Amino acid sequence: METLEKYKNLLKEIGKLESATSLLAWDERTYIPESAHEARSQVLGKLSKMAFELSVSDEMGEYLEELTKEDVFQSLSEKDRASVYWVNHDYKRFKAIPPDLFEQYTIDRSKSEFVWEKAKAESNFEMFRPHLEKMVDYAKKFADIFGYEENPYDALLEDYEPGMTARELKEIIEPLRKELVSFLRRLLDEGEAPDTSFLTGNFPKEKQRELSIRALKAMHYDFKAGRLDVSAHPFTTKIGPSDVRITTRYIETELLPAFFGSMHEGGHGLYDQGIDKDLTWTGLDTGASMGIHESQSRLWENYVGRSRAFWQFFYPQLQEVFPEFESVPVEDFYRAVNKVEPSLIRVEADELTYNFHIMLRFELEEGLVNGRIEVKDLPELWDDAMNRYLGVTPPDDAHGVLQDVHWSGGMIGYFPSYMLGNLYAAQIFAAARREIPDLEGKIASGDLLTLREWLREKIHRFGRMYAPKEILEKATGEGPNPEYFLKYVREKFSDVYRL
Amino acid sequence: METLEKYKNLLKEIGKLESATSLLAWDERTYIPESAHEARSQVLGKLSKMAFELSVSDEMGEYLEELTKEDVFQSLSEKDRASVYWVNHDYKRFKAIPPDLFEQYTIDRSKSEFVWEKAKAESNFEMFRPHLEKMVDYAKKFADIFGYEENPYDALLEDYEPGMTARELKEIIEPLRKELVSFLRRLLDEGEAPDTSFLTGNFPKEKQRELSIRALKAMHYDFKAGRLDVSAHPFTTKIGPSDVRITTRYIETELLPAFFGSMHEGGHGLYDQGIDKDLTWTGLDTGASMGIHESQSRLWENYVGRSRAFWQFFYPQLQEVFPEFESVPVEDFYRAVNKVEPSLIRVEADELTYNFHIMLRFELEEGLVNGRIEVKDLPELWDDAMNRYLGVTPPDDAHGVLQDVHWSGGMIGYFPSYMLGNLYAAQIFAAARREIPDLEGKIASGDLLTLREWLREKIHRFGRMYAPKEILEKATGEGPNPEYFLKYVREKFSDVYRL
Repeated sequence: METLEKYKNLLKEIGKLESATSLLAWDERTYIPESAHEARSQVLGKLSKMAFELSVSDEMGEYLEELTKEDVFQSLSEKDRASVYWVNHDYKRFKAIPPDLFEQYTIDRSKSEFVWEKAKAESNFEMFRPHLEKMVDYAKKFADIFGYEENPYDALLEDYEPGMTARELKEIIEPLRKELVSFLRRLLDEGEAPDTSFLTGNFPKEKQRELSIRALKAMHYDFKAGRLDVSAHPFTTKIGPSDVRITTRYIETELLPAFFGSMHEGGHGLYDQGIDKDLTWTGLDTGASMGIHESQSRLWENYVGRSRAFWQFFYPQLQEVFPEFESVPVEDFYRAVNKVEPSLIRVEADELTYNFHIMLRFELEEGLVNGRIEVKDLPELWDDAMNRYLGVTPPDDAHGVLQDVHWSGGMIGYFPSYMLGNLYAAQIFAAARREIPDLEGKIASGDLLTLREWLREKIHRFGRMYAPKEILEKATGEGPNPEYFLKYVREKFSDVYRL
Repeated sequence: METLEKYKNLLKEIGKLESATSLLAWDERTYIPESAHEARSQVLGKLSKMAFELSVSDEMGEYLEELTKEDVFQSLSEKDRASVYWVNHDYKRFKAIPPDLFEQYTIDRSKSEFVWEKAKAESNFEMFRPHLEKMVDYAKKFADIFGYEENPYDALLEDYEPGMTARELKEIIEPLRKELVSFLRRLLDEGEAPDTSFLTGNFPKEKQRELSIRALKAMHYDFKAGRLDVSAHPFTTKIGPSDVRITTRYIETELLPAFFGSMHEGGHGLYDQGIDKDLTWTGLDTGASMGIHESQSRLWENYVGRSRAFWQFFYPQLQEVFPEFESVPVEDFYRAVNKVEPSLIRVEADELTYNFHIMLRFELEEGLVNGRIEVKDLPELWDDAMNRYLGVTPPDDAHGVLQDVHWSGGMIGYFPSYMLGNLYAAQIFAAARREIPDLEGKIASGDLLTLREWLREKIHRFGRMYAPKEILEKATGEGPNPEYFLKYVREKFSDVYRL
């Protein structure tokens, strides 16, 4: 079919441009000389625009119109159908926004991000307020343009977690919150907190890097199709079908942030490396959703990396790199990496308290989009909620409402993905335990390949072929179910805290 | 003027695409994961093609037609005239080649390069011969298409050294050869060769890197607008107006190749970093020619880096990094870095014998293009000439006619640039000595900035505004004159060899 070939060729063109922009962006965050940023942003802007223009071109529109005709669509292979479905899904959303509105949005967004950085540095919410108000207005406008059945927030969620709704999120969050609040209270009141003093000290970058690399190799992250570099904010990027790079950041006084950061990004990396090569440049060579992607990073970081079984295998390696740990028993170490501590900053939160940071953000942004909350009231509402959930109060807005970049960049509807990632990870790991005989024993003996292969078979290889719920059902036999997460934290932390 | 604005915008678009391809190519030679090459070459191919298509587009043709009209052209600013002149110069050449012929050429060239690599590894000239014959045929065809007055070789030279002719090259080479042959003989027969034994040993990469960086900083290569990385074949690339990266390669048993390689690429880097920022993406933000570019690398590598004055300043720094040199007197070291030794491989040749490698290649390729020489006779002719000039005979074709990549990639007419670079460097350095009071004293005290500023003022800032001969005249007061080089080698090597 000629249209199908033309359509595929157009996607390849877009894919190649996006590959170039990914490298330009990776370099901008890793190796670029400091005077080169201004020209780089012009080059990046140009190439992103070219890729975007192709993806909303009349040409694309014609191909999609033809390929989505019912009889034509049904005659396609499963992969081609998935490609047409998702490319059309995005095309309709992009095309719905009037070009003038979109252009003004990108300009305002860029200003907003710029001002946020300054406002955060000065802990000055008032400076940022008018820009955030604009971003919320855009979110409302876009929600109206995209359309929704029940809640405008659903229209925004669709960008990050297709098919998810605010109603469903609330149904997930409500029981989760209740359980977690009371469990956290009990843990802190009655539990025996682990000693973590040995996790701070002097840990040279080179040694930390070696440790990260050993863990990534154990995970079978493919260094022939990837790299580990340094950047201010760790990230994973897919530059090509065999080019998935991750970054971390070393703090020499702390042993673990870079290490777990590497395992986290390594989990994202395994997902991207595992996508079937024949999905390259078809619009499907990406994750099913932000939530599913995050489930993979969390699974490797927490369900593997913070497990007793993993340290049974890996602790001798850590002791090889840092001989000072020969005097620390592995059990003490295992307990230390699982310390629970209510804190102000989302990205530093532990497994258990992390979700509260998300619940809070979801409540606020859903309220903003629905007009129940005004931007000016955010700082107060934020501090209240922090107190309610975690019993801590931000000393200033930099440690409160200004801490995350997302809202400044118009990313409203993104935060729930992080929580969903945690819940999905629990559910997926539970399924892996059911299906892989003696998974803990395998991990304890250093065999992480069986788990990676299982994930690849069940999730990774499909890329974006299936919606998040579909992929979850395929892998675990059911839709999102927070019970797995609750069971996991109860069991694990009761043990760690000797309840 | 509307056309001028449109023309400038089109050049900016091309410039941005070329910036992206430069980064893709840099990464391909430095940090790319090994499985990623295939996809990368597709991405690179796509982006190069896009830039090329824009540069020969009808749009470009229309703008150039308008802007080259005599009255319009004369009304332009000097910079705009230069831009229009050189962009039109290249446009006419590109457009002259029928697209089908060019496409077939790129396919055949890619095969030829591939086979050359294998043929070189196996030292099998016969395997490569048919491909080289094709490349020579293309060169002849292109020469006819481009047109020439006297010698088809001139039409090819124009790509690398605009305005230069085979006749002029012969006029330069003839006296140079005579002098150099007899001087080399005298040097080797009557001179006292320096001891170089201390230049081999164990020199860890990290320390070599530190030494290179110290030298580059002393040269005032701007690390805020550049980087030093590692690649199999060292190179310099301009990715953007403030992003000029160089590479080197460390051999741990040898002290100097990476060091002088860094100074060499650093010289290229200073040129590219020094181009006026308002020439960015105008078609002029590059060197005036291959020869002028090479003059800058040679000047820093040899006229500075292999001078007594430089080591007077820099030797203590070397001794700091490599304390084992505390027992080697600086004069012995200076003499060692200037050892002359006839050898088989061009890229390993010293300052004095280097030009013979070029003369030989020029003779052969000029003969090929004019049909006086046939490809099948090359190995024998090569070995004869090596014997005649340098008294050495290649043991096989890998160390002879197969050693360089250039011909396999259709780059016929390129080699003379290397020799011209040497001659220009001598001439430019002589002018700098005339104009900068006590240049040697400045170098000996570590002041390399005065020289860099002089070069920037006289050469770098102009980019490609002027033809090579013009820039040489502006900087030195005369056209190419090999006498400066001869005087330099006679004086320097008579001293080093204690004649």
